[in-house]
Amino acid sequence: MKMVKILLDCFGGDHSPEANVDGGLQALKAMPDLELILTGDEDALKKALSGKEYDKARLSIVHAPEVIDPGEKPTDAIRLKKESSMMKAVRMLRDDEEIAGMVSTGSTGALVAAALTRLGRVPGVIRPTFCPILPTLKGGIVGVCDSGANVDVTPEYLKQYAIMASLYMENVYGVQNPRVALLNIGTEDEKGDALRKEAFPLLKETKGINFVGNMEARTLLAGTADVVVCDGFAGNVLIKSTEGTALELLKHVKTLIEGNLRYKIGAAFMYKMLMEQKELLNYQNYGGSVLLGTQKVVVKGHGSSKATAVTKCIEQAYQMHTKDLSGKIEAGLSENGFN
Amino acid sequence: MKMVKILLDCFGGDHSPEANVDGGLQALKAMPDLELILTGDEDALKKALSGKEYDKARLSIVHAPEVIDPGEKPTDAIRLKKESSMMKAVRMLRDDEEIAGMVSTGSTGALVAAALTRLGRVPGVIRPTFCPILPTLKGGIVGVCDSGANVDVTPEYLKQYAIMASLYMENVYGVQNPRVALLNIGTEDEKGDALRKEAFPLLKETKGINFVGNMEARTLLAGTADVVVCDGFAGNVLIKSTEGTALELLKHVKTLIEGNLRYKIGAAFMYKMLMEQKELLNYQNYGGSVLLGTQKVVVKGHGSSKATAVTKCIEQAYQMHTKDLSGKIEAGLSENGFN
Repeated sequence: MKMVKILLDCFGGDHSPEANVDGGLQALKAMPDLELILTGDEDALKKALSGKEYDKARLSIVHAPEVIDPGEKPTDAIRLKKESSMMKAVRMLRDDEEIAGMVSTGSTGALVAAALTRLGRVPGVIRPTFCPILPTLKGGIVGVCDSGANVDVTPEYLKQYAIMASLYMENVYGVQNPRVALLNIGTEDEKGDALRKEAFPLLKETKGINFVGNMEARTLLAGTADVVVCDGFAGNVLIKSTEGTALELLKHVKTLIEGNLRYKIGAAFMYKMLMEQKELLNYQNYGGSVLLGTQKVVVKGHGSSKATAVTKCIEQAYQMHTKDLSGKIEAGLSENGFN
Repeated sequence: MKMVKILLDCFGGDHSPEANVDGGLQALKAMPDLELILTGDEDALKKALSGKEYDKARLSIVHAPEVIDPGEKPTDAIRLKKESSMMKAVRMLRDDEEIAGMVSTGSTGALVAAALTRLGRVPGVIRPTFCPILPTLKGGIVGVCDSGANVDVTPEYLKQYAIMASLYMENVYGVQNPRVALLNIGTEDEKGDALRKEAFPLLKETKGINFVGNMEARTLLAGTADVVVCDGFAGNVLIKSTEGTALELLKHVKTLIEGNLRYKIGAAFMYKMLMEQKELLNYQNYGGSVLLGTQKVVVKGHGSSKATAVTKCIEQAYQMHTKDLSGKIEAGLSENGFN
């Protein structure tokens, strides 16, 4: 059996290294052809592993004494912290042909900066970007590309996002013929700012995607699209206001319930449903943001990822590699004249 | 007593003309020095007024046989439908010095186009813009400027928005020393795209405002700012995703409750709280979007406005006029070198 080798950066997250290690061990159980290389302080990793059962032939540790903090300036961090768990993983990913990808729950800025400057791109890609996944209230998911990696973009970026994210949703999540929508301030074809007005006809003529037109931010959770294409600034606002509103509302209602006996009784009747909805909106169940456009796979888990979320991230990396997403992206871009 | 004359466009909304007329009559009761001029089809307006008690000396009708539909192309509508209830009101507002402002629940695009081309601006204003109000979960409100009127902007626009919206929140809603935040993809000073990076230092040096720095979309409902400054594209995404998420979530939970007896019982215990939260998020309670930067007052109510929302819009117009907002905006801009 040909093994799939994935690097797991075990530091830099809120629950590191324990959550990363536990998430890694769960992934090893779920995927028999997975091999994990943990990066981070060796003693701490050995401690986190001690007493746990796992297939020792499929797990190794690469010692990395430094940690990049979330608050560090990305360009400084990647230049100065060469011995960090993240930068060691990035270098190994670049240099070792046998390694398929890496997963990190550390600094997003540092990971983007490192991936953009240190890793090879798929031929034709202008700039790799993130595509996080959000749940919809119909039980489905939607990919938002971009969500903050590239804030100053051209219409060609959006065209490439549409191709890459479409292939990602289809190959990693099995979404058939994904509906690609352009985030806009109205649904009519001619709406928007200069960027959207130029991007719309480009998307309409893009080969190999199912472009369904403009989409308003209000319908994201209603599941009107499988891929939402936008610049990183608007995408960041979209994702953060959607998540923020849902979380603030739930928190608010929870406070109201806790302060009133009558409401507490009512909530007890609805317990199962409330928990299910909380689970539905729990991003930990949807894995991380994958980087689209690099030759090797990079998955960025949320800083607050617990073990389950880390396992999901590893599954995403595994799927992207085994489905040869970078090869498919190269073909999709080439079909549209990007070489 | 010097009367405050306000035009009320009674057509073009989902519940026109009844909701507009009823909202107008409520406003007449609440404000003894208010005088209303209704525009629209005279017969229909007389029918809507018939049998209702009101001070006839303070209400008049100006016949306007045409209606601008929400779907009509704004530039065509304002050019071709000169006899519409909206365009007649805009012309009267422009030509009659005695009239303080107008309220409309009709086509946003047509109203913006008409206001920008037909009405005088406050000296120094680059472009008038909308500032809708959203409720926060702390029981307060937040003004978002802009929310879609101007999608391609310069840093100077954002500086003017900060000044105008700050004066609006202070004078119309009594918010003391309003906290002005720049919508961004992170809270650190140097975050953002080219527009935000240029706008940040401009806002920092703006006289007469309380600039509190960058704000992420996720904290809008938590009430971290009183004024959020952004380009119209991002502002539109912010507002629509916040409203959309709240509404979709409420709708979703309602469907789940209705399909299950146990949940229905639970909801009955929580009825008061659920209704209060629905009311809190009901935009009908917060009036319309006001146009900032025109000499005369223009308030745009939501297309689905019912009577209460129309009354709120008239109150907003009344406040903007009596507090001399345009005079204060002129002074605020002048203090910052815009003449």
